[in-house]
Amino acid sequence: MKFLIEKEELLKGLRIVEKITLQRGIQLVLANFLLETKEDEIIFSSTDYDNSVKTSCRASIEKEGKITLPAKKLFDIVSKLPDKPISFELNEEKSAVMVKSGNSKFEIIGISASEFPEIIKEEELKTGEIIKLEVEPIVKAVKKCVYSAASYETRNVISGVFCAIKNNSIEMAATDGNRLSKYTDTLASKEGVDSSVVIPAKSLLELLRIVQITEDKFLEIILNKTKIIYKTDKFILISRLQDGVFPPYNQLIPQNCEKVAVVERQGLIDALERMAIIVDGRTSIVKFNFNENVLTITADSPNEGKGEEILEIEYSAEELDIAFNYKYVLESLKNMEEEKVKIWLSTSLSATVFLPDEQDNYLCLIMPMEVRA
Amino acid sequence: MKFLIEKEELLKGLRIVEKITLQRGIQLVLANFLLETKEDEIIFSSTDYDNSVKTSCRASIEKEGKITLPAKKLFDIVSKLPDKPISFELNEEKSAVMVKSGNSKFEIIGISASEFPEIIKEEELKTGEIIKLEVEPIVKAVKKCVYSAASYETRNVISGVFCAIKNNSIEMAATDGNRLSKYTDTLASKEGVDSSVVIPAKSLLELLRIVQITEDKFLEIILNKTKIIYKTDKFILISRLQDGVFPPYNQLIPQNCEKVAVVERQGLIDALERMAIIVDGRTSIVKFNFNENVLTITADSPNEGKGEEILEIEYSAEELDIAFNYKYVLESLKNMEEEKVKIWLSTSLSATVFLPDEQDNYLCLIMPMEVRA
Repeated sequence: MKFLIEKEELLKGLRIVEKITLQRGIQLVLANFLLETKEDEIIFSSTDYDNSVKTSCRASIEKEGKITLPAKKLFDIVSKLPDKPISFELNEEKSAVMVKSGNSKFEIIGISASEFPEIIKEEELKTGEIIKLEVEPIVKAVKKCVYSAASYETRNVISGVFCAIKNNSIEMAATDGNRLSKYTDTLASKEGVDSSVVIPAKSLLELLRIVQITEDKFLEIILNKTKIIYKTDKFILISRLQDGVFPPYNQLIPQNCEKVAVVERQGLIDALERMAIIVDGRTSIVKFNFNENVLTITADSPNEGKGEEILEIEYSAEELDIAFNYKYVLESLKNMEEEKVKIWLSTSLSATVFLPDEQDNYLCLIMPMEVRA
Repeated sequence: MKFLIEKEELLKGLRIVEKITLQRGIQLVLANFLLETKEDEIIFSSTDYDNSVKTSCRASIEKEGKITLPAKKLFDIVSKLPDKPISFELNEEKSAVMVKSGNSKFEIIGISASEFPEIIKEEELKTGEIIKLEVEPIVKAVKKCVYSAASYETRNVISGVFCAIKNNSIEMAATDGNRLSKYTDTLASKEGVDSSVVIPAKSLLELLRIVQITEDKFLEIILNKTKIIYKTDKFILISRLQDGVFPPYNQLIPQNCEKVAVVERQGLIDALERMAIIVDGRTSIVKFNFNENVLTITADSPNEGKGEEILEIEYSAEELDIAFNYKYVLESLKNMEEEKVKIWLSTSLSATVFLPDEQDNYLCLIMPMEVRA
């Protein structure tokens, strides 16, 4: 293998594959990415078993070949090289690549490409349901939901994000049992079948990371029984789907709202961030008192002190005390952009819904915490 | 105690005292700082036993008093408050302070001021040798030397920085046994005695941190037998001096230089930073080969690979192989500003001196490492 490649192209490829590796597995080769020549291109592939990615870039190939190399190390070296073309030459016998640029020369020891698994099978790309759609609404939906997915148990269905594509709309939802985020959007240019699946959060986060690098505007999704494939001209990402049945979350969302508060979003964020300093670190409990156009927020920490914030709000229902893990409320508020938020209240122990004041395509449901008097 | 204070004034005071506390000591009160009223000012004091600091700011005092409070917690709260005057009111019985600003209210639990030690005694400020000088050359000298002080044993004399003030010049030096930094400068407006002392690195670093906050231009230094006091209108910092005799470092610096290399400083930094990626992490050894106007730098790491950099330099003496801990070389080079550096070489095992090409007031001596063939 011997080729010449532009520094920026190489870095882009390395950034795409770098995070999808298995650094402390028993199969050492999976800590590396696979680098191979194909016609006038270099192909980069990597896998962590649950997710695999493949991307390519143009290069002047002088001699074909392949090898696996440590992506992070190569990235660190290349990013410090001057902005000149970089030459790669494989020494098959030593499984090492000589990387040269200007007066710098590195010999990087890899592992034979023969040990690297076949991560994306051609037939997987050809069988399954195909959906074509824009990247932007997907990115937005993921950002608005993924943080609510359970992080504690990666094989549990609720560590995934529910995603339904139907006609020209997309609905995403995620829940960890204590909170739920749900977002819907329209798809201006969707083509293909309708479908609903549960996608592991990690898969969606990798997709976000990669499309930020590639700047792709459109995406093809291929759904097999057990896998999801995201595909553009620039990359292929393949992930296993989450097993199991996603909880029927729409049933959890209150249909008729008895008490509504309207609050300045940024003011509430600021107040909660101050409460966060004095909150009891073991419980993260912040208490809310809703009363005649006034919201009073309090928190206390034994031996350290307490805090109180008073906010003017719109609220005309009866007085209500309710307590939340402030982190859930903060995360929800920060994922909205609108100036004001609505809070749908019922009782001190009922699911409470936070949503933008004048939009109905996003909501965050948060279960309150029980506070002993 | 009851007073009203401007947010920015309060934050400045808190930033000064915040780092000089004892967070995990047995005397819980030393994790706090002392807040007390004095005429129309608020005094902030804190100590970590080796260093103590006192600063003040204007406030509208309504009622006198004092209390100790957790500086970091108070800083975090205050920095998130809106930019309005902040009121403090002490509840003596609860040892708690009510902090109010706008619609925010915090009760912060402190520890009685009676438990706080007397950290700066009036007589200490009056006895001892006095030196008045500008801040700027001190700051510069500290930055150029302090990183070479030993960090492993805080009670050893070489964890201090040697500082001699004589006539209108200052000389600082620090060494950890493997390297030495020495800097001299003129003092345009020095007044007072001549003296030489060994100052703990931590004391000088705190001085740097504090003058950056206060923006003081001039400084008074008071030297007792065991203590150094830095004093301006805005703060007093008092630190113990280091016991012991500082090594006679001038004897270590080669007087006649047999072989000189002149190298582009930034080029050498870039090359070493690339080598750092491939260097053996256990030894940090980078090898230098000086030959007829060429410097070749190499590093290798078992099982990972190796790197080589070639630099054009000015060098006409005989070929020389020498190895260094690259971190020492990098740190020295980064503390110079000049475009070119000189390297004074002798043998593969001799102390090597790095210095700016056209200045003679700064040098870094580095002991080479022995490399087995």
